[in-house]
Amino acid sequence: MPLVTLTTDFGEGSPYVAAMKARLLEGCPSATFVDVSHAVPPFDRVSGAFVLWAGTRHFGPGAVHLAVVDPGVGGNRRAVAFELAGSWYVGPDNGLFGLVLSESTTGPLHAVELRRPAGASPTFEGRDVFAPAAAALAAGAPAESLGTAFAGGLLPLPVLGPVVLWVDRFGNLVTSCRPPVPALKVNGHEVTATARTFSEAPPGVPFLYVGSMGFVEVGVREARADERLRAGPGDPVEVLAGA
Amino acid sequence: MPLVTLTTDFGEGSPYVAAMKARLLEGCPSATFVDVSHAVPPFDRVSGAFVLWAGTRHFGPGAVHLAVVDPGVGGNRRAVAFELAGSWYVGPDNGLFGLVLSESTTGPLHAVELRRPAGASPTFEGRDVFAPAAAALAAGAPAESLGTAFAGGLLPLPVLGPVVLWVDRFGNLVTSCRPPVPALKVNGHEVTATARTFSEAPPGVPFLYVGSMGFVEVGVREARADERLRAGPGDPVEVLAGA
Amino acid sequence: MPLVTLTTDFGEGSPYVAAMKARLLEGCPSATFVDVSHAVPPFDRVSGAFVLWAGTRHFGPGAVHLAVVDPGVGGNRRAVAFELAGSWYVGPDNGLFGLVLSESTTGPLHAVELRRPAGASPTFEGRDVFAPAAAALAAGAPAESLGTAFAGGLLPLPVLGPVVLWVDRFGNLVTSCRPPVPALKVNGHEVTATARTFSEAPPGVPFLYVGSMGFVEVGVREARADERLRAGPGDPVEVLAGA
Repeated sequence: MPLVTLTTDFGEGSPYVAAMKARLLEGCPSATFVDVSHAVPPFDRVSGAFVLWAGTRHFGPGAVHLAVVDPGVGGNRRAVAFELAGSWYVGPDNGLFGLVLSESTTGPLHAVELRRPAGASPTFEGRDVFAPAAAALAAGAPAESLGTAFAGGLLPLPVLGPVVLWVDRFGNLVTSCRPPVPALKVNGHEVTATARTFSEAPPGVPFLYVGSMGFVEVGVREARADERLRAGPGDPVEVLAGA
Repeated sequence: MPLVTLTTDFGEGSPYVAAMKARLLEGCPSATFVDVSHAVPPFDRVSGAFVLWAGTRHFGPGAVHLAVVDPGVGGNRRAVAFELAGSWYVGPDNGLFGLVLSESTTGPLHAVELRRPAGASPTFEGRDVFAPAAAALAAGAPAESLGTAFAGGLLPLPVLGPVVLWVDRFGNLVTSCRPPVPALKVNGHEVTATARTFSEAPPGVPFLYVGSMGFVEVGVREARADERLRAGPGDPVEVLAGA
Repeated sequence: MPLVTLTTDFGEGSPYVAAMKARLLEGCPSATFVDVSHAVPPFDRVSGAFVLWAGTRHFGPGAVHLAVVDPGVGGNRRAVAFELAGSWYVGPDNGLFGLVLSESTTGPLHAVELRRPAGASPTFEGRDVFAPAAAALAAGAPAESLGTAFAGGLLPLPVLGPVVLWVDRFGNLVTSCRPPVPALKVNGHEVTATARTFSEAPPGVPFLYVGSMGFVEVGVREARADERLRAGPGDPVEVLAGA
């Protein structure tokens, strides 16, 4: 039972996700699904890159990870598939795979630019281009059968320097900084307190901790850091020297 | 592994969806699930009809599509099951199946009014009436074993004339109009611009395009059409002659 | 195919749910999933207890129910697993299992305090402690292999007296009261009308009915009871004598 994961910005409850799953089952009837997220902020490739990486990194080899956050749908960005550590990634080459690639120690293999099937909708390539390609890979088709190999690299994350990657449901800011970080400036606010867990943090004060994905995060015990610091995905952060 | 899809207005995260899946697995232990949506606007049979059609139309024959958007639960609307193009639809006969039926070229077969099991909750027929019936059909039971055949038709979509069927996550309005449409009036606003894709549309101006489901949609590049035109599901639209 | 259900407050679309599923498949490759909810209000153990009970009560024996609503993550509350009526429950011992336990007629068996794997993240025990334990149980491992048996009881629901347990998507208040209840006071408002179904209720007036889960609920036909009565999960309710 090949596993296909799905990561999109279609919105929870969009019927377009089911439309993609229908195409996936058409091409690979034994596929099983894990929805990583359909709540990526609309068109947000930075948040999408984090959600895709965080949601797929723990799966073993053999999975197919389909990702569609695609402000350029119908334009001329490449539609791609590539192998990374034994699993496949399929989606638009617009930076969405930036974190998956930068966190990998091996680099991509077998990258192909996907062929566009005749009659594909110009506004729903998730259903008409990416899902059929993902299904074919899940069913064991060679990548070369789906398009043209290319050697040039895939696009990196579309940001310069450290940023807020994602805001979780509790309002915590996941930054792109790796520990150790003595202090951070976010939207003009210096965050200098640190703690190992929320239980150990002083209430009401923004503090730094190492999140479960290995990045430095900013939280506020019993409050929302995103509201306190008025910060969100894509906002730059500045690493400060310790006191 | 029979496939059962689910479309409701219970809300994402409602435990009542899992309660229905428990009943489905009780009656058909090998069933697999695809959630089409649980975010249909509450009691909105027009949006529900679009979501159900858009989310189920690409699945091949042999599926069971369970749909519950049911403002009349506990009242005297019919609970029904019917076959369409080799798959089953199960739910309330209140117009929710209107688009599935009007878009079909074959018409329904084997329509039955479902028998109400003794002890069924008057406020949760999704769990106590529809899920057991869907499970039985998924397990291969004949429709006739679930209730009484009827010949009269199922209810159509509860609207007159062209309307906004659904608003997607990006604020685009999916109308019930088929192309070609030279221009549309929505909530007093004339929309006359057209484009093939968002990439080709002028920013900030409402425009018409043919959506991925084949209906005319209204979008605004880099903005929300629903907010710009203050329009939503069920609102009437007027087809205008071209300039 | 062992069934694992998941109930969390991570938020719909959180990639951390997929991270847990990756760990579940790592430990039990044949597992299938039903998501009960990831929309439990943040840190709300009362709502979580209701959602967990309502979403899991109809599944037959042999399932593993993983639940994570865990304001004390990283602190010293116990991480537990126990058997109830032939299925397993896994999660933090903080009252989240209170309703599952109080509604059961049999009482828990084989309760163990879970061992914490070396290197487990102090902020994501769902992935590093609970999911591996749930996977092991789904794969048939004896509970004793996962930690230390204990005899003292599990924590009850963290409330005294009758409360609002949950608010559904339609704004209906699910209370912890069992019928018959002649009248209720909620946030200073006396609710004395009763009806069997919404179809039978007078429009615009808060009324009592027996919900599909067997508890007394407060609804308003064609309106939201939570907004009308300004009440939500955890709010106390007072049972009044009949008129």
